[in-house]
This record gives sequence, structure tokens and C-alpha cells, in this order.
Amino acid sequence: MAQVKNALLRSGILVVFVAISLAGALAQTDPLPSWNDTAPKKAIIAFVEKVTKDGTSDFVPVDQRIATFDNDGTLWIEQPMYVQLAFMIDRVKELAPKHPEWKTTQPFKGVLEGDMKAVAATGNKGLDQLMAATHSGMTVEEFEKIVTDWLATAQQPKFKRPYTQCVYQPMLELLAYLRANGFKTFIVSGGGIEFMRPWTEKVYGIPPEQVVGSSLKTRFEIVDGKPELLRLPEINFIDDKEGKPVGINQYIGRRPIAAFGNSDGDQQMLEWTAAGNGPRFMLLVHHTDAEREYAYDRQSSMGRLDKALDEANQKGWTVVDMKNDWKVIFPPGQ
Amino acid sequence: MAQVKNALLRSGILVVFVAISLAGALAQTDPLPSWNDTAPKKAIIAFVEKVTKDGTSDFVPVDQRIATFDNDGTLWIEQPMYVQLAFMIDRVKELAPKHPEWKTTQPFKGVLEGDMKAVAATGNKGLDQLMAATHSGMTVEEFEKIVTDWLATAQQPKFKRPYTQCVYQPMLELLAYLRANGFKTFIVSGGGIEFMRPWTEKVYGIPPEQVVGSSLKTRFEIVDGKPELLRLPEINFIDDKEGKPVGINQYIGRRPIAAFGNSDGDQQMLEWTAAGNGPRFMLLVHHTDAEREYAYDRQSSMGRLDKALDEANQKGWTVVDMKNDWKVIFPPGQ
Repeated sequence: MAQVKNALLRSGILVVFVAISLAGALAQTDPLPSWNDTAPKKAIIAFVEKVTKDGTSDFVPVDQRIATFDNDGTLWIEQPMYVQLAFMIDRVKELAPKHPEWKTTQPFKGVLEGDMKAVAATGNKGLDQLMAATHSGMTVEEFEKIVTDWLATAQQPKFKRPYTQCVYQPMLELLAYLRANGFKTFIVSGGGIEFMRPWTEKVYGIPPEQVVGSSLKTRFEIVDGKPELLRLPEINFIDDKEGKPVGINQYIGRRPIAAFGNSDGDQQMLEWTAAGNGPRFMLLVHHTDAEREYAYDRQSSMGRLDKALDEANQKGWTVVDMKNDWKVIFPPGQ
Repeated sequence: MAQVKNALLRSGILVVFVAISLAGALAQTDPLPSWNDTAPKKAIIAFVEKVTKDGTSDFVPVDQRIATFDNDGTLWIEQPMYVQLAFMIDRVKELAPKHPEWKTTQPFKGVLEGDMKAVAATGNKGLDQLMAATHSGMTVEEFEKIVTDWLATAQQPKFKRPYTQCVYQPMLELLAYLRANGFKTFIVSGGGIEFMRPWTEKVYGIPPEQVVGSSLKTRFEIVDGKPELLRLPEINFIDDKEGKPVGINQYIGRRPIAAFGNSDGDQQMLEWTAAGNGPRFMLLVHHTDAEREYAYDRQSSMGRLDKALDEANQKGWTVVDMKNDWKVIFPPGQ
């Protein structure tokens, strides 16, 4: 019996030893290794630890841990122009041979000649025409393929890498950290919902059903005996500014407890998040790194951060200073 | 050492014994105990086993296991009228003291006097007026409370129990069985999205963000310094018939591999589901049980099942004969 006891004791000691090693390894693993040890990182971790600690008044049940992220400028690059705008320009060039009239008609002429001032002069009407010509007139599945094919070859001009590699490594870590703590992560973007859904799961770990964005109307139709969804040249929903809380309510149906953005287009989403009961976390990414990425805020034509920055400073929302708070910007090259 | 070996051997035998008992218990646990052992139950189980068996050509990865369910008549009762219509009538009665003019104005007069023919005579315009008066003019949070309070006291007239207990026990089991096999379950209903979201998680285990439905427009506004979402008297989206595949694409962004309905309003959802690649499962609940629930199909004013039934019979979709295929209809009384 002594031997049995001894064997059991030894295996017991082994179990305890393994448990201690694991706990040590876990404690030593930094969930946000690409973040410098500055205020934003500390604020994120303090918030997550607070809402996940059972038995306290700040504890938030798992099903209410909703976190929403803007996409352009928050999760991936938005300079020198929104990626979807680059896509649109390339689409016009690709389709131009079938539309000889575009050579002489704005806004297409401007796009083909690289005269963006002429394009801008056509205003919203011109943009609608460009959207219709490049984003509608096909099935949803055909559009998914067009987007996927384009992203496979298009390159961001400054960094000469695919746009899907111009995503922010610190934000990828943040998404994973939140999910590891029971959060459900959503994208809430002014960009096109069907421009994002083909790749967000692979790149961010966010499945299509957790992507909220702007959209065109679609129509169900039986084409040659086959049910199809056709993309129409008509705006369905603009998920920007006041549209973001509307989109959150429409798609998610609950108020987030944490929201992440980078521009005035995200201000209302952060306000809506902040106005709920219990612990709240609001963060803005401030693009301050002209060398490693871009530096822009109040005067920018894309991703303008002005009023939201004032409100963040006034209300104590977390502001990431990209240059000082992030160790790296993009994932390691592949 | 012999004793150690003996002890280890014994514990080994114990482990094997426990494992065998557990396997036996699991094999004997019927995942659909309220379903009779007829064709629909067999078809459901065969489908789930097929798509979850790794290494076969029919295997479907977990993230693509999307199942969509109609609500009225598929998950809960829809007779003698849609539950939301009963809610609307009660709301008119509750609000009437503040609107003396309703006593003499259709469609309100008809609702107050129980003259549904007069209400019906006002057509879509009348219905829009009723919707506006009962479903808009408050914040989304106020409406959530109104719905929750109403459901806490309202009773289904035939069965004298709350509507949330007039849900179909066999369908609750089916939802749980699918989720246990890695499916993500969604509601895709013609009913109001904000009429369902307050209770679907508790009753069906389906969280708000997995509920797709019809909706009114909302507007973000700062009221007395507080951000609010106000419900407007304007239709945003009708999630019925051709609208169901549109809603699925808009909200979920992927095609379901299984879809469940009970009326012609679900026909396009089932067609859209059926038209995808790989294994597919389409099911219609046919209300054939006048005694335990209701019997209705081709001639019904609510939940009419006519063309979809023909298509199901023609294409071999599964049709549940409620009377013969379900052992019980509702959950045990509470």
C-alpha cells in the first residue's frame, strides 16, 4: 500500500507542478505584445479585467460583452484614399473598354484620366453614378468574387503590400484579446458591407454575420430557374455618423459596452456606447505616425478626426497615439 | 511494484468502464424526444449526421452551419391571429383614453369596437396608421419595455397561457440539437425585429443579433443631452417572401444550409437555401392538428401554406405533419 500511496502522491505532485507551470506561462503571456506599456494598453486591460471579474458590480455577463469596431483607419489603412475608392477606380478602368462613352463623360472621364478634381466636382451625383457602375448590376456572389480577386492583387501604394496586410497588428491583438475574454466582436463601418464580408473572417476573425456596413439594395429573382440576389444601383443604408447607432440597433439589437473608432464618423457610435449603464470603454485611434503609417486628423479629407477628438479629450475617452503607443503598425511581412 | 501495477490496472479498468457507461448513456439520449419516430425526425438526424461527419464530401465546416427559422407558425403559435397583431390591438385599447378622436376614426374605431372587417377595409393605409400609433414615437428602449410588459400578462385565447409558452416544444429541441452540432441558429421572420428581440434569447436561446425581421426606421438624436434612438412611423424593411433572402443576405451575409418555415412567406427563403451547393435541408411545418393546436393551410388568412406546400411536395422538402409527427406541441405547463 505504501507503494501505491507513493505512486499516487508522485502523480499528485506532478499535477500540481504542471498546474503551477501553466499558470506561470499564462501570466507571463502578454495579450497585447505590439502595444507599448503606455496608458491605452493599461486602460484596455483594466477594463477587460473589471468586466470579467465575477461577483463584482462591474461584472458584465458574456452575452452582453459586445464590442464594435470601425474598419477604415481603425482596423486597416485608409490613406492615401479609402480602399474601397481604390477598388472603384480600378473597376472603372477594367470596365472602360465596354463603355467607350466614359472617355468623354464625367465622372468616368476624370477617373480614367486621374483627374480627381473633376470627379469631386460631380459631387454626390457623380459618386452615385460611380457606385452604380462598379458595385451593382451583378449577383451578390459575383460581387464577392470581384472583391476577392481584386484584393488578391491590389497593392497599397506606399507600403507595396496587399491591403489585407495593411491591417493594424495591435488591433488584431486587441480583437483576439477581447474574444478570449468572452467578447463578441463586430465591425460597424461606413464602408460597403459586401466589400468587407468576403475577407473579414480570414483577416480579423470576424464572421460575415458580425459585419455591419453601408449597403445597396438587392432584389430576389429567379433567373433561368435559379434563385439569385441581384445588386441594384440604389442605396439601402449609410452606416456612418448618426447611421452607426442606427446600424448597431438594426443589426445587433444591443448596445455595445466597448467601441473603437478613429474619426468623426465614429463619434455617434462612441456616444451611444458611452450612454449605456455600467462599465464602458471608448477608444479612438489617432494617426500620428507619418513615417510608419500616416499622420492626419483635423484637416484630413479621409478619416477626419476633429469633433470626436475634442469630445474624447473632454470626456476622458482613450486616445491611441499611434506613434507612441504602438510598437509595430502592420503584421510581419509574408 | 505489483501492487502499483494492480492499482493502475484497476483505475484503468474503472476508466474504461466509466467511458463505456457514458457512451451508452449518450447513445441512448434522444435529441428530439418530442418528435415521433417518423420520416421528418429521421431526415433531420440523417442531415445533421451527414454534414458533421468530418472527412466526407458532405462535411460542412462549423462556420458555415447556418440554420434559419421563421417565427410565426414555425417556432410559436400564429392563430387565431399573429401575436403582434394581438399586441397592436391591446396597445390601441391602452392608448385610446389619450386619443378621444379614435372613437370615431377608422381604423381605430374598428379596433376599439372589435369590428375587424372595418379595420380590414382600411387596407394597407389603415395598417400603417395602426403601426405608427402603436409601434413608433418612443425610444427603442421604451418599446422593448412595452413589449416585455405586454408579454408578461397577455394570454393566448385558446390555450390560456402566455404566448411565450405557446412555442413548439419539438422546435425548441430541434434548435438545441442543431446548436449542439455546431449550427448557428437565426430567426428570419416577417414579424417586427424589435417585437422579437426582447425575448428570443430566453425562450429560444437565440440572441438579438441573430434575429432578422421587419423593421421601422429609427433616428439617432441627442435628447436633453442623452443620445437616443427614436422609432419613426416609417417602414424600413419588410422581411417576408422575396424579402427573406434579401434579409438573410443583408444581416447574415451567408446562405443558410438549412431553413425552416410554415407558409408561403417562407417559400423564397427555402428556395434560396436549396439553391446553394452541398447538402441542404428544407422543412415546412404543416398545421394539421385542430385539437392540440390549429389545422390550416391553403385557405388560411394567417400563415397561408399553399404554393410552398406544392413546391415542397414536388422537390421532396421535408413536411412536418404536426398531428402525426409531434408527440407534444407545447412545453409542459409552468
